[in-house]
Amino acid sequence: MTQATSTNKIVILGNESVTLPKGYKAGGMHCGIKKKRLDLGYIVSEVPAAVAGVYTTNIFQAAPLIVTQESIAKENKIQAILVNSGNANACTGEQGLLDAAEMQKKFADELGVQQHLVAVTSTGVIGELLPMDCINTGINQILQSEYEQEENFKQAILTTDTCIKQIGVQLTIDGKTISIGGAAKGSGMIHPNMATMLGFVTTDANIAQEDLLAALKDVTNQTFNMITVDGDTSTNDMVLVMANGLAGNEQLTKDHPDWDCFVDGLEIVCKELAKKIARDGEGATKLVEIQVSGAFSTDAAKTVGKSIISSNLVKTAIYGTDPNWGRIVTAAGYSGVPIEPNLLEVSIGQYKVFEKGLPCPIVEEEVKSYLEQENVVIYVNLNQGDYSATAWGCDLTYDYVKINASYRT
Amino acid sequence: MTQATSTNKIVILGNESVTLPKGYKAGGMHCGIKKKRLDLGYIVSEVPAAVAGVYTTNIFQAAPLIVTQESIAKENKIQAILVNSGNANACTGEQGLLDAAEMQKKFADELGVQQHLVAVTSTGVIGELLPMDCINTGINQILQSEYEQEENFKQAILTTDTCIKQIGVQLTIDGKTISIGGAAKGSGMIHPNMATMLGFVTTDANIAQEDLLAALKDVTNQTFNMITVDGDTSTNDMVLVMANGLAGNEQLTKDHPDWDCFVDGLEIVCKELAKKIARDGEGATKLVEIQVSGAFSTDAAKTVGKSIISSNLVKTAIYGTDPNWGRIVTAAGYSGVPIEPNLLEVSIGQYKVFEKGLPCPIVEEEVKSYLEQENVVIYVNLNQGDYSATAWGCDLTYDYVKINASYRT
Repeated sequence: MTQATSTNKIVILGNESVTLPKGYKAGGMHCGIKKKRLDLGYIVSEVPAAVAGVYTTNIFQAAPLIVTQESIAKENKIQAILVNSGNANACTGEQGLLDAAEMQKKFADELGVQQHLVAVTSTGVIGELLPMDCINTGINQILQSEYEQEENFKQAILTTDTCIKQIGVQLTIDGKTISIGGAAKGSGMIHPNMATMLGFVTTDANIAQEDLLAALKDVTNQTFNMITVDGDTSTNDMVLVMANGLAGNEQLTKDHPDWDCFVDGLEIVCKELAKKIARDGEGATKLVEIQVSGAFSTDAAKTVGKSIISSNLVKTAIYGTDPNWGRIVTAAGYSGVPIEPNLLEVSIGQYKVFEKGLPCPIVEEEVKSYLEQENVVIYVNLNQGDYSATAWGCDLTYDYVKINASYRT
Repeated sequence: MTQATSTNKIVILGNESVTLPKGYKAGGMHCGIKKKRLDLGYIVSEVPAAVAGVYTTNIFQAAPLIVTQESIAKENKIQAILVNSGNANACTGEQGLLDAAEMQKKFADELGVQQHLVAVTSTGVIGELLPMDCINTGINQILQSEYEQEENFKQAILTTDTCIKQIGVQLTIDGKTISIGGAAKGSGMIHPNMATMLGFVTTDANIAQEDLLAALKDVTNQTFNMITVDGDTSTNDMVLVMANGLAGNEQLTKDHPDWDCFVDGLEIVCKELAKKIARDGEGATKLVEIQVSGAFSTDAAKTVGKSIISSNLVKTAIYGTDPNWGRIVTAAGYSGVPIEPNLLEVSIGQYKVFEKGLPCPIVEEEVKSYLEQENVVIYVNLNQGDYSATAWGCDLTYDYVKINASYRT
């Protein structure tokens, strides 16, 4: 599968992930935090890599986020990422910070690198101290070759996710093949401004750190920050991109003729991971995409899209395959954006359901049958301008209630 | 049951409603919009009454809201309210406006009053034209004595509500007994800034219209606007207060020594209706109250309260009787209010679950057993100032999903 861009071709590789780029290895194991499933994973680069990160806007930032941000601030480089699942190390006070730092130091020692070159992150239950005995024993063993498998890493970062999320792309810059690979986990508390969403992206591009960070922020705003599962923004959200330069290209900056191509590649990776998180939202049966066009600004388009995809009434209607355009229109109407009721057009798939302030005649069974698909697209044209945005989410189901009435986050 | 205030005593009458004040009658009937249940109701005052209204902030205002607001603007008085359920007359374009006006005129003619003295409102399915034949036939008959029962009115305004919502209070001003009575309907699309929430309050107080409106806005912000069922703000929300002056008191204004007592009475009525709407939210099994204190402003307290009560994760945890303080803390943390993590204290009922950035030791079974009650109170102290606010909502259950995956709003 290839996607043409202005300057280049980007090859999308659905079965690749964080070890697609040169110089990365990844692994994972069961260290004992969870009952059975893998719960400790790593990515390691052969050489220190430029790093860019975006973090939750929740005031309660989990301990590992604090530790990682402080470490990255030192020289904007890391060489490794260590992740545990099953315990978020959030709301754990001073001891939580000490534990995150201990985890970081111990893994740095195993690797023989400086402590601040290791990023640590955690996802799972809030408010319980990390079981440091399990984690320390795990760190002692995890670099053994039996655990070194990209698949293990992708498994080890999951919580209530039902599947791994991965994607890879390749493009050519300065005659060199540049690879970008990603892995992520969802699946509840997802309404990022940065959810318990973790995203890890690796590339072998040689790229200026400040430009990488600018690109990540930009891309995150179009991708990870445009998904919602339940409107809850977690304490642990984090997306990290590592760029180790081993592709051997001239350093990429904003002024490089192929800059946009790289950013497009990064965006494809982040968007694919974001959509997979939305599709695998707790209890979800469908991926729902809201494409808003004709807005007077990008922010207005985003706000309308997020308002619709966040509506419990829209989400339950889609679960029930009910072509309930009234709830879509209502959610657009309370978004806070001054839309013009008589200009608004709404389509469910190819079926126009609302325009000029009135519902359109539809064959209910046709639209219902469209809604039975796993991927539902709703088009909203505000007819007020030239800006657009897309938001992704999922339906709201019995299983969402079941999972969350019993699972202790 | 009585409640002492600074100036007076307010007697609360749980079984009274809109005909408690002097000079009001109410009724309702089945006119054929719904299959069987009552669907057309009225309140009529013997004399024109000062009126104050608050309306949905949704950009898509339903036709009857537009017609009613225009009519009220003429002289800030009405003598009657006509309500239908089963059809919201929203997203119905020009014809919808004509239908709302026709309904208004026809009822005014039956009563022998000017058209603009009738407020009309509708609740139910969006985007279908009103069945004017049923409504017109209904209006022809509804003033017959067989339909004149307050109980009928309270029934006729319901949609997916499982019960009527009513309350009355009495207080004494200038030696005269003043009564205030109210009735309301919920129960989905409830996140007022004005939900499909309709509230009707009557009083026999003689009161200046502009002061009545100021009091209603103030009280609504503390009551109806502090409840949520699903975060969706409907196209049809409206609260109307009629004051016909038949109690014979000197005209109440802000300067009257008993002004605060009247406002307290109005607040009790609105708060009780609001709480009943929250408790009867679609599929709800519990009323959840979030009491926020220690905020640096009232707005901050409200924002934190609404953020917590709007969280699907908090709502499902309460349904599952799971003392999941982590979700409460998380929702406070993403509210946008700059709270201080180490100052925050959270209690579930009498059980303190979080302080100084850390969970408190609890006997899980005790808190679980508290959460099994029908009324759950969560206390959140921000310890940053002296302001407080209360928000109300309900749990999120299988039945919410069931109702909304199949019901066409």
